[in-house]
Amino acid sequence: MIVRPRPSWFGLLFARRGSLMPRIAGQLLFVYALSFAVVAAHGTLFHWKVTLTAAPFSLMGVSLAIFLGFRINASYDRYWEARKLWGGVLIETRNLARQALTVIAPAVRVVPGPADAEPTPAAPGDVEADVRAFVLGLAGFAVSMRNQLRVMPADSGLHALLPAALVARLPGLRHAPQGVGLWLGRQLQDWRAQERLQPALAMVMEQSLDRLMGLLGGCERIAGTPLPFTYSVILHRSAYCYCFLLPFGLVDSIGWMTPLVVGFVSYTFFALESLSDEIEEPFGVQPNDLALDAMVVGIESNLRELLGDPLPALPQPDENCLLR
Amino acid sequence: MIVRPRPSWFGLLFARRGSLMPRIAGQLLFVYALSFAVVAAHGTLFHWKVTLTAAPFSLMGVSLAIFLGFRINASYDRYWEARKLWGGVLIETRNLARQALTVIAPAVRVVPGPADAEPTPAAPGDVEADVRAFVLGLAGFAVSMRNQLRVMPADSGLHALLPAALVARLPGLRHAPQGVGLWLGRQLQDWRAQERLQPALAMVMEQSLDRLMGLLGGCERIAGTPLPFTYSVILHRSAYCYCFLLPFGLVDSIGWMTPLVVGFVSYTFFALESLSDEIEEPFGVQPNDLALDAMVVGIESNLRELLGDPLPALPQPDENCLLR
Amino acid sequence: MIVRPRPSWFGLLFARRGSLMPRIAGQLLFVYALSFAVVAAHGTLFHWKVTLTAAPFSLMGVSLAIFLGFRINASYDRYWEARKLWGGVLIETRNLARQALTVIAPAVRVVPGPADAEPTPAAPGDVEADVRAFVLGLAGFAVSMRNQLRVMPADSGLHALLPAALVARLPGLRHAPQGVGLWLGRQLQDWRAQERLQPALAMVMEQSLDRLMGLLGGCERIAGTPLPFTYSVILHRSAYCYCFLLPFGLVDSIGWMTPLVVGFVSYTFFALESLSDEIEEPFGVQPNDLALDAMVVGIESNLRELLGDPLPALPQPDENCLLR
Amino acid sequence: MIVRPRPSWFGLLFARRGSLMPRIAGQLLFVYALSFAVVAAHGTLFHWKVTLTAAPFSLMGVSLAIFLGFRINASYDRYWEARKLWGGVLIETRNLARQALTVIAPAVRVVPGPADAEPTPAAPGDVEADVRAFVLGLAGFAVSMRNQLRVMPADSGLHALLPAALVARLPGLRHAPQGVGLWLGRQLQDWRAQERLQPALAMVMEQSLDRLMGLLGGCERIAGTPLPFTYSVILHRSAYCYCFLLPFGLVDSIGWMTPLVVGFVSYTFFALESLSDEIEEPFGVQPNDLALDAMVVGIESNLRELLGDPLPALPQPDENCLLR
Amino acid sequence: MIVRPRPSWFGLLFARRGSLMPRIAGQLLFVYALSFAVVAAHGTLFHWKVTLTAAPFSLMGVSLAIFLGFRINASYDRYWEARKLWGGVLIETRNLARQALTVIAPAVRVVPGPADAEPTPAAPGDVEADVRAFVLGLAGFAVSMRNQLRVMPADSGLHALLPAALVARLPGLRHAPQGVGLWLGRQLQDWRAQERLQPALAMVMEQSLDRLMGLLGGCERIAGTPLPFTYSVILHRSAYCYCFLLPFGLVDSIGWMTPLVVGFVSYTFFALESLSDEIEEPFGVQPNDLALDAMVVGIESNLRELLGDPLPALPQPDENCLLR
Repeated sequence: MIVRPRPSWFGLLFARRGSLMPRIAGQLLFVYALSFAVVAAHGTLFHWKVTLTAAPFSLMGVSLAIFLGFRINASYDRYWEARKLWGGVLIETRNLARQALTVIAPAVRVVPGPADAEPTPAAPGDVEADVRAFVLGLAGFAVSMRNQLRVMPADSGLHALLPAALVARLPGLRHAPQGVGLWLGRQLQDWRAQERLQPALAMVMEQSLDRLMGLLGGCERIAGTPLPFTYSVILHRSAYCYCFLLPFGLVDSIGWMTPLVVGFVSYTFFALESLSDEIEEPFGVQPNDLALDAMVVGIESNLRELLGDPLPALPQPDENCLLR
Repeated sequence: MIVRPRPSWFGLLFARRGSLMPRIAGQLLFVYALSFAVVAAHGTLFHWKVTLTAAPFSLMGVSLAIFLGFRINASYDRYWEARKLWGGVLIETRNLARQALTVIAPAVRVVPGPADAEPTPAAPGDVEADVRAFVLGLAGFAVSMRNQLRVMPADSGLHALLPAALVARLPGLRHAPQGVGLWLGRQLQDWRAQERLQPALAMVMEQSLDRLMGLLGGCERIAGTPLPFTYSVILHRSAYCYCFLLPFGLVDSIGWMTPLVVGFVSYTFFALESLSDEIEEPFGVQPNDLALDAMVVGIESNLRELLGDPLPALPQPDENCLLR
Repeated sequence: MIVRPRPSWFGLLFARRGSLMPRIAGQLLFVYALSFAVVAAHGTLFHWKVTLTAAPFSLMGVSLAIFLGFRINASYDRYWEARKLWGGVLIETRNLARQALTVIAPAVRVVPGPADAEPTPAAPGDVEADVRAFVLGLAGFAVSMRNQLRVMPADSGLHALLPAALVARLPGLRHAPQGVGLWLGRQLQDWRAQERLQPALAMVMEQSLDRLMGLLGGCERIAGTPLPFTYSVILHRSAYCYCFLLPFGLVDSIGWMTPLVVGFVSYTFFALESLSDEIEEPFGVQPNDLALDAMVVGIESNLRELLGDPLPALPQPDENCLLR
Repeated sequence: MIVRPRPSWFGLLFARRGSLMPRIAGQLLFVYALSFAVVAAHGTLFHWKVTLTAAPFSLMGVSLAIFLGFRINASYDRYWEARKLWGGVLIETRNLARQALTVIAPAVRVVPGPADAEPTPAAPGDVEADVRAFVLGLAGFAVSMRNQLRVMPADSGLHALLPAALVARLPGLRHAPQGVGLWLGRQLQDWRAQERLQPALAMVMEQSLDRLMGLLGGCERIAGTPLPFTYSVILHRSAYCYCFLLPFGLVDSIGWMTPLVVGFVSYTFFALESLSDEIEEPFGVQPNDLALDAMVVGIESNLRELLGDPLPALPQPDENCLLR
Repeated sequence: MIVRPRPSWFGLLFARRGSLMPRIAGQLLFVYALSFAVVAAHGTLFHWKVTLTAAPFSLMGVSLAIFLGFRINASYDRYWEARKLWGGVLIETRNLARQALTVIAPAVRVVPGPADAEPTPAAPGDVEADVRAFVLGLAGFAVSMRNQLRVMPADSGLHALLPAALVARLPGLRHAPQGVGLWLGRQLQDWRAQERLQPALAMVMEQSLDRLMGLLGGCERIAGTPLPFTYSVILHRSAYCYCFLLPFGLVDSIGWMTPLVVGFVSYTFFALESLSDEIEEPFGVQPNDLALDAMVVGIESNLRELLGDPLPALPQPDENCLLR
């Protein structure tokens, strides 16, 4: 994710960081060169005049507009749904942690004082070891999800959050986050068995855990099902053919301004297609993808503050304004 | 579903696999031939000059754009909703399996150890036979759903997942997945009768089962109600008439470039209509339809890993990059 | 609903069934006749030359496109939401039936066998009379909903599904489906009173019943609130004025091709408006409306299969491919 | 809300009721007069020829189309969401009433008969006084909501539905519907205290009450937050400037047809803007706003039928086809 | 948020307050000056004639329209979702307060009277101190959320709503609203421990608290993830280049009317982009952002009325019609 203060209207015209220019430079140069060649040859190809005018291009523009509009909307919907799912992970882990801290009958019971004495959030020493392991395990679940979605090693970044035996087992699993989820469910099972968790409240926690697993499933859906490949093919071909033919259609009416206009049109089409490609798979590591690493640390920071732990440093954008 | 790494911008222009060209080749050739004939005859038909210009086509393009835009959006919404429903099947089966493994009071109770000893996922021998049958039955439900949606034999692929007596009964049922759902509900009933499932937690499992059956109902809705047929008729007629008339409108201004432009416009219109047709019925077996077979194996793989079973091989795209 | 296999691209151009042509034939003939008259008179009206060109029509097309696009989307959203609500009726009745069969403590208790003996769906004789009445009553609720939405007699088709005394009372009620819903609720009340339904599971069934009544309310909302009437007026006037003026704008440039182009544009506009009208009220009996009769039989078929009853025949499309 | 049978295609062209013509007559006459003046002066202004052509207007039309399309969609979404919220009020009040009638342990218990004797909906005398007060109080909540949204006196229309002491207190409250909601909650509290409402079922009713209050909150949100005012300003200025300049751009090519075309374009733009304005605030009393009065009576009718009371007459559209 | 009665159609053309003119004056003046210079030089640049016509601009308009339409919709969706989340905060705090007042077993029990004696909302003296602290704490949660989203001091405005010890701790927390949420959860824990809150009803309150925390998470998501920065860059460049080139394309056909048309087009593009920017971050303090301060007071007003407290004054728009 690119995080930077918005420049002024003038500065934004020349922003280099956050631009897609490098990724589409090849295609743009090709179109530019073609435009110059067409103008220099006065629109003839091998001594044969290409008789295109601007009119057919406005016809073609209709279908192209439909494709591009559809593509950009569908890609952004995927991006934003992915963001919502990860926002849900923060929400559900926070809720499960709050419930673990207030619903599980503690070994040392807080004596209810008079009504106006507000209960104090537990100091580090107050949280029992298994509650603490469960809360950190929630952060571990988020990390495990990130590992799965980014195809990273299944135990990456988990050693401080999950018990060693569980971490050791994860690389052997095909669906590692599900293994962590089962471990969390087993913890609830233990608390019920120890009668530290009442059935009615166990229901609330089971439902939260269900939702947490549902968020994982939603992310797997987005990661596993791209836009229909044929869409990309039709769009790509239409947009590129359009840009390759355009110089022939403009050269007779605007002459040496042709490369400028063709470059402008091509820039917007290519940049749009390239950006759609990028955010269509929002869990990648390209500049406009979601900052999963930062989100995972944010979740850990939230949970550790509930535990009263020292907090991890929040990631900052690098010198290219990128947050991974 | 077509699964392939995205080619470079240049390779994508000539991708053969994942293209719709074969399906629309007939229409395209017809339009091409017509265009050449029109240009050769200088836009006359039986010695009578067809006096069309480009102007009316931009008027017609407006209504056509509305139809196409609507059609593509509605079709993709159906496709993506179907995908979400199947994503939900993964989620709910996984949740029901986790609950069956942690909520059903086991015959051999795990002795709650000290808080820092994490509970171990059960080894194969640890899961009781009826819990195991229930979890596999969840995978069987997904397979049964696939059979229903793809009009396959009701017992196809179910022998390893459901009890033999139930499988034998399925071909006689009109709504086979509902029969599997009832069987799953009967299992919950037994556990409640045996007092191995507390009422409050039975509620959570009943609600998950309700949602699972709801996902089945959602898929039946998509499979049973196409887009209004009249839409397809209006769109089809408009798009084809447009393409058949277009050569007459362009021949006077762009001459021998007419076939190129007409071909370009026709390609995008026909390809778009054809693709919309394909993804409008997302449970079929055409290239861009959902890979139900692969999803069903994915669900089985998830559930078997929870049971500690050996995992089935995940399906891979075939030589045409197709995943069924 | 029109149900037919999709014809080939060529056959679809001349499909008669499923076309709206008969409904818009009057308007189309009027516009055709006007076009011919305009061309014959060389665009003069009472010896006064109407000086329109194509340019203003592309300006007007912008606003018209907005209206049409909005109208078609809003109408289809209503249609599809209505379909989702009826899909929900299938889902909730099925869930309530499954719960009635597995959650209500039966008089003859199934003895829980060893874990690998799968429970058998009850044979007809196994279901108790009141559970059976409740399950059939769910089908009755769907029928009653259809009667209400299609303004049919309140007891139509209900004699086989609901107790005679209840059916006799329905025609006297203003909100008959609500009366059936109350009767279903009273049945749950009885089971609780007889201690055959535990409170935690009663909650699940009450929530399902709430959702079922909510689906009824959703359908009443769609049936009771059309699109703002003024929208229809503005759209209608704009589209018709546009088509009536169009011949004057085209006659000078395309002469005798004017009727063809005007007919084409009018066909798409009129057909679109007519179809939007039709699906905007999805509970009617026009060709593209929802097949409520078939859906009601489908629900009964599902529920009767759960009871082990002989199944009703599913309705088939008639000779005009219509399913009501 | 305008409720009228749809006229034929011909009658709709001249429908007077349901048209916005009166509200935009001033602007339209201004534009008409301007157009005539421009044509009469041959496009000169103070002896200076205004050199506009049609081309710039198609450029401007692009941005205008975006604004108008956005505006109309956003306004209709507000309208339809408001309608959904009120549909939800019908649903939740009906559900709460059904629950009050079947879930609250009655003083006179219905003796459970044999399974085939269907339970009878209570006759007026059968419903206990406090259940009856609660059910009527639900209708009172809806009326109170209407009063709040339409800025009517807080006790208007409530004397037959709520206890006198509560009605007397409402005008003194800033958030009167919330006061009614608290009163409903207190009734549930009493039933729990009297042990006539079991905790698990109290949960269902509390959740329904939560949803009912949520619907109130949703309506307050729509009523309290209009579309960003600046949008309205930009749209208004663009549309009006466009219409004021248009005669200058058309006069040279279409002469005396200019007023006709300008009038057509202005009609659609002004009517659209005016309608958007109207439905953007759906709780008002303009012709296309929601018929809150009729909905409130409909809710009362539903609840009274559940109680077995005589039913209030349903409001009918007045001579202008208006339902308030 | 700008709150003002809508002026007449004429007044709206010249509204100064609520206009974006000041923010885009620089760019507009630049474009104006450029247009005049281009007309004065007859479209030549350094004695070289720029040969642009209007045709390429209609081509470019297509892609620009797509970008602008996407941008405005995505920004407004963010704005409206943010508004829905804050509407949810009102709803959930109100529900939690109602539940605290009716569900928590009071020390002084209201004696249930005969059914027609309606229960009275508690007078100030009736509410116990800890229930009162909890209800005010809900308002404190909303204030804390506002502080977090607007990057204000964590204890700003909280001294009257939360216990002093908690307020003192907030500035030391990284996620202060979560700290308040934990405090609310601890209060529920105490009531359960004191057996004043039954488990089934505790579940309802825990779920409400979960939803309240979820709304916080939703707001953090919107605040933390802007639209992909690259979108803004592409849109900005395309729109500005378009406006800078436009005078060259129009000067030959419309001469001295060029600045007028260019100014009109630029005004709509620049104003749209600027407004999108503003509402994209809806929690800021710019004129069209959400009025969080007013909403927070509204929530406090609602809760204090439930407690029977004197009500805070509701904020009014300032002399510029602004509500912060």
